[in-house]
Amino acid sequence: MPTMSIRSFKEGLSPERLELLLEKTPFTRFLAPKVERCDNGFAQLRVLLRRDLTQHHGFAHGAVVGCVADSACAWAAGSIAGDVVTSEYKVHFLEPAVGEALVGKGRVLKQSKAIVAAQSDVFVVRRDKEILVATALATLAVVQ
Amino acid sequence: MPTMSIRSFKEGLSPERLELLLEKTPFTRFLAPKVERCDNGFAQLRVLLRRDLTQHHGFAHGAVVGCVADSACAWAAGSIAGDVVTSEYKVHFLEPAVGEALVGKGRVLKQSKAIVAAQSDVFVVRRDKEILVATALATLAVVQ
Amino acid sequence: MPTMSIRSFKEGLSPERLELLLEKTPFTRFLAPKVERCDNGFAQLRVLLRRDLTQHHGFAHGAVVGCVADSACAWAAGSIAGDVVTSEYKVHFLEPAVGEALVGKGRVLKQSKAIVAAQSDVFVVRRDKEILVATALATLAVVQ
Amino acid sequence: MPTMSIRSFKEGLSPERLELLLEKTPFTRFLAPKVERCDNGFAQLRVLLRRDLTQHHGFAHGAVVGCVADSACAWAAGSIAGDVVTSEYKVHFLEPAVGEALVGKGRVLKQSKAIVAAQSDVFVVRRDKEILVATALATLAVVQ
Repeated sequence: MPTMSIRSFKEGLSPERLELLLEKTPFTRFLAPKVERCDNGFAQLRVLLRRDLTQHHGFAHGAVVGCVADSACAWAAGSIAGDVVTSEYKVHFLEPAVGEALVGKGRVLKQSKAIVAAQSDVFVVRRDKEILVATALATLAVVQ
Repeated sequence: MPTMSIRSFKEGLSPERLELLLEKTPFTRFLAPKVERCDNGFAQLRVLLRRDLTQHHGFAHGAVVGCVADSACAWAAGSIAGDVVTSEYKVHFLEPAVGEALVGKGRVLKQSKAIVAAQSDVFVVRRDKEILVATALATLAVVQ
Repeated sequence: MPTMSIRSFKEGLSPERLELLLEKTPFTRFLAPKVERCDNGFAQLRVLLRRDLTQHHGFAHGAVVGCVADSACAWAAGSIAGDVVTSEYKVHFLEPAVGEALVGKGRVLKQSKAIVAAQSDVFVVRRDKEILVATALATLAVVQ
Repeated sequence: MPTMSIRSFKEGLSPERLELLLEKTPFTRFLAPKVERCDNGFAQLRVLLRRDLTQHHGFAHGAVVGCVADSACAWAAGSIAGDVVTSEYKVHFLEPAVGEALVGKGRVLKQSKAIVAAQSDVFVVRRDKEILVATALATLAVVQ
């Protein structure tokens, strides 16, 4: 299954530990997200928008926005459930993501033994303002 | 709005034209998809799985799988509706995507003036066999 | 396409007008929702939980919860966009809906000419407390 | 959690057993679905379209279509996994459901210990032809 699993969470998690893990993940190294929060069912990450993360209109590419949305959900879930994989997600794209950075904010909606439901919003940072560009709902499966 | 819009479709489309457009799209150049079909409401693309498209277990990263699923839907829609942007999609991850390449196959379910609904499946190619790894449903908005 | 379209919205809408329309809708008459708010991109409705709206464990049936979620999105969209039909929605079921009533609260996330994206939460009322039981994201198509 | 759980499946299932269970489910008795198939990861059901299942344009109400879509997924999953509840689903409405009956056809995409992913299509029967009116993807949680 895809996305970032986070086995190390079981021994206790910190944003620093998550960033160490991300460095071992080739695709994630390309995005280079900074983990700003990951605890108690909440996560926040930031991706600086370089040119190679855009599509031909200059917006952040949908796959990058989707990855931020999915990661925010997965890490929020991982912060309380340990190792998880994304089972499914739905993302709505609301505005063109033009700006300096993407910020993803995820939170757990419901935790059961095998499944976590989570929600995330993705914002673009433009001249110090955060503008909502996408919203997502995800199901994370707990790895047992 | 994100993902690949395909304005050139209005003058008539071919896989070759789409590939020219993709070369101007920084993020897409990173994925380097080969367009194998794009006509009459159907699209097929192939992405070779290099190490920098994987996550730390060696699977294709979920964002890469999701991008193939989204692109297959968007291009299938674009093949009949011209310039489109992804409004939303849902993707289910079914199997770890371990193999030599990803193949995305999209088809239009319903076209109306402003919206196209499309469906796609993503397969991983492993020793010449195609294994279903993800399935998606998407709404594409027609750019007017 | 299905769900409640709301053509009368074009001449200006009030909860009273929406309830008049709902009385002409056979399936809705079965649910008997009370419209508590419907303006400026927001909607709220309440459905009393009678025995014939439950499944065999005594919870509100998923189709009833889903209908409340969908209606809250559709009416929030209709309050600013006039006649709309649901194009697609996704609903997550978070808790068993055991209680005296369901309350759906919808809000518009994004309005464009042809499409409205909306979000809703469904709560069950149990001993005067509202408990979140479901959350949804929907795409509404504007009827033109 | 909502929708129809199917505990009796654990002792072996047949369409007849499922129909017995459905008779104990108040909301389902209102829809009165006929189970035409439920085995080996596949399910098919049929709902006759009476006037009280329609909305004010005379189409089958979206909640009815959604319920058929959800049930087809849940029963397909239940046929191999025993007692399940719907965790989430997404449904796309493709055509107005005008006709004599709705037919839902579900199939399992992926079964793991705790989760089943399933897909369904809903058709309306109009003058002996089946016309696709909706398609859905669902996550079912196995009750343990």
